[in-house]
Amino acid sequence: MARIIQKYGGTSVGDVERIKNVANRIKAVRDQGNELVVVVSARAGVTNELIARAKAINPMPSEREMDQLLAVGEQETIALTAMALHGIGVPAKSYTGAQAGITTDTVHTKAKIKTINAKALEKDLKAGNVIIVAGFQGIDEEGHTTTLGRGGSDLTGIALAAAIKADKCEIYTDVDGVYTADPRVVKDARKLAEISYDEMLELASSGSKVMQSRSVEFAAKYGVVFEVRSSFNNNPGTIVKAEVASMEKVLVRGVAVDKDQAKVVVSNIVDKPGSAARVFRALSDAHVNVDMIVQNVGRAGVANLTFTVPQTEMKKAVLALEPALKEIGGGQVTVTEQIAKLSVVGVGMKTHSGVAATLFQSLAETEINIELISTSEIKISVVIGLEKADEAARVVHAAFKLNQL
Amino acid sequence: MARIIQKYGGTSVGDVERIKNVANRIKAVRDQGNELVVVVSARAGVTNELIARAKAINPMPSEREMDQLLAVGEQETIALTAMALHGIGVPAKSYTGAQAGITTDTVHTKAKIKTINAKALEKDLKAGNVIIVAGFQGIDEEGHTTTLGRGGSDLTGIALAAAIKADKCEIYTDVDGVYTADPRVVKDARKLAEISYDEMLELASSGSKVMQSRSVEFAAKYGVVFEVRSSFNNNPGTIVKAEVASMEKVLVRGVAVDKDQAKVVVSNIVDKPGSAARVFRALSDAHVNVDMIVQNVGRAGVANLTFTVPQTEMKKAVLALEPALKEIGGGQVTVTEQIAKLSVVGVGMKTHSGVAATLFQSLAETEINIELISTSEIKISVVIGLEKADEAARVVHAAFKLNQL
Repeated sequence: MARIIQKYGGTSVGDVERIKNVANRIKAVRDQGNELVVVVSARAGVTNELIARAKAINPMPSEREMDQLLAVGEQETIALTAMALHGIGVPAKSYTGAQAGITTDTVHTKAKIKTINAKALEKDLKAGNVIIVAGFQGIDEEGHTTTLGRGGSDLTGIALAAAIKADKCEIYTDVDGVYTADPRVVKDARKLAEISYDEMLELASSGSKVMQSRSVEFAAKYGVVFEVRSSFNNNPGTIVKAEVASMEKVLVRGVAVDKDQAKVVVSNIVDKPGSAARVFRALSDAHVNVDMIVQNVGRAGVANLTFTVPQTEMKKAVLALEPALKEIGGGQVTVTEQIAKLSVVGVGMKTHSGVAATLFQSLAETEINIELISTSEIKISVVIGLEKADEAARVVHAAFKLNQL
Repeated sequence: MARIIQKYGGTSVGDVERIKNVANRIKAVRDQGNELVVVVSARAGVTNELIARAKAINPMPSEREMDQLLAVGEQETIALTAMALHGIGVPAKSYTGAQAGITTDTVHTKAKIKTINAKALEKDLKAGNVIIVAGFQGIDEEGHTTTLGRGGSDLTGIALAAAIKADKCEIYTDVDGVYTADPRVVKDARKLAEISYDEMLELASSGSKVMQSRSVEFAAKYGVVFEVRSSFNNNPGTIVKAEVASMEKVLVRGVAVDKDQAKVVVSNIVDKPGSAARVFRALSDAHVNVDMIVQNVGRAGVANLTFTVPQTEMKKAVLALEPALKEIGGGQVTVTEQIAKLSVVGVGMKTHSGVAATLFQSLAETEINIELISTSEIKISVVIGLEKADEAARVVHAAFKLNQL
């Protein structure tokens, strides 16, 4: 008997038939004698419907109320999934985030899990129930409803796996696993059998849509091994786990492209100590996720700061910059949305050189201009023009021979 | 400054525009310096949509999961209403039933409120917020989501009025107030300026759709004076309060028709002590609401029991009767859905006689056959054929001169 966490995303529970399909999958695993805790997302489309209704009422809805509203989506799915299980003879109980004891901080729409008190859940689990938990949501210490932000349901699954010491954690999604590149763009992209947390993390933060960084970070921190796989077939997925020596034999694990970033240039800032700090503190206070940062000092005493932020946070970023720049004394903000970030990722880079050279050369040969570069120990990212993004992915994938095992 | 509870039903918050309309009404009252706690229902139609989805997944969904599912409807409305208020500059905070401290028993889909801990709500109210509370829902002591059954949002409003000692309680609905009869059926029906709890109670239990009995009972028990009025105009409604002497001058306050009852006949029961008790205990254990009851003893040693139940509970009633009848030793169950219950109600009856005579005579003159009769101190009800119901309402309304002030 194993204790298994499964997480099903919005497309997996998108309608009545798919919810029944998920129930059948759950039953099959339970019939083998396993204990199951299942995390579900809102039905695909529901969250967007709710957001549209909110914006029709108030174009700038309060984040507290957005959380109260959006939690509804998952609460519907847990009840329907439990009912579907009852219909095929499987005892099941639904749990909202609050009922599952998921306590978060109070940063609405982007809350962080602080503790999980799984006592009630454990009791129902031991009594033979399949437990269905609403992903993406929790409550803060004062009982306010919070949501965990994009990818929050994955986080719920992984955090629960850590809390109840699950033997297995399966993240079901609409893709088969993690690929060397987006298979819709790069035809000969390969599915990876396994990948390290660090690589997965870099892929996630580089625009690979499979999972959000925070879920992977959480898994890495608590050592939760998980598998990303599809709920529409029985193919093995990709196992995400701690780095092992054999992984370093591969130089580059994958190529990711992020088309949802915007480039912000703050030019002509007075170049005095603390200017940059002031800028980024303002962005951090506004909970804007800044990604790549480059600072150039131009003509005497004046600096340019360039960075990327998610397109969805661009307006918030520009608003946050205003008072900061006033305080510093000047600086113009220019924004470009037509960019893409291309990244190559692999733990093998740590011990090999030459990755940057291969990357830059392959792009140069295709006459793709590089606007920004940033590197980490296991990743190199470049910002290029949006219109060149797909071509770049194919060129780089081929340059690193990722189609070959 | 007064402390006011307002409750808006599903049609009042049926879409984005109506929610904005409600927000404007709230603002107007708040601008006069009042404290406001507003209870809202699910948008009209949402609850039925959710039920349909549940039934598509499982024709007999568990009541626990139905509660988890249905609570979603009100949770959406509270968030949207709070957002609408923010949009017109009114500070507001939404509260789910659980957040409002509404603790109930564990009878899912029909829970009773046990306590309200309004501490958090009071704090936010005193800080200047309008508080928007999800009607119809609570949690039991173990944190399970419960719902209060039909009319549950009214109950939330009235219970909160008692808990926070509100000065006024306004129940907004899609009708103007309480009428002497259904104005769609009886053209010269009049709106009542006031009515006693007892009369309202008897009207409610007699099929007047304005409010459910339990809300009125709760109001009577805690002395909560409330007004039933429309959210679509500014007409004064009907004030519901304790009986005052002047009310007794009116013999009959109104005529109500209930078309949602079914008649159940249990015939040929062995007529021994405890048989009837066993039957009604079985129904009570199954939480079936039995209304009118008549017992006839037929041929030696055999009795017939006739009673009415809501049509929605008929199947449950028949299921519950089976084991009970087996135990007693026999009895056949026959069910008729084509019935209507007509009731005349008025505290004046207590001290006057002749009401029954007038009622029966007016029906006899119109050749309407009476199948069952039951009386209380301030009500007489008769069961008649469903096809005669509207005609009977008009005849009786006229016989008691209810069109005249």
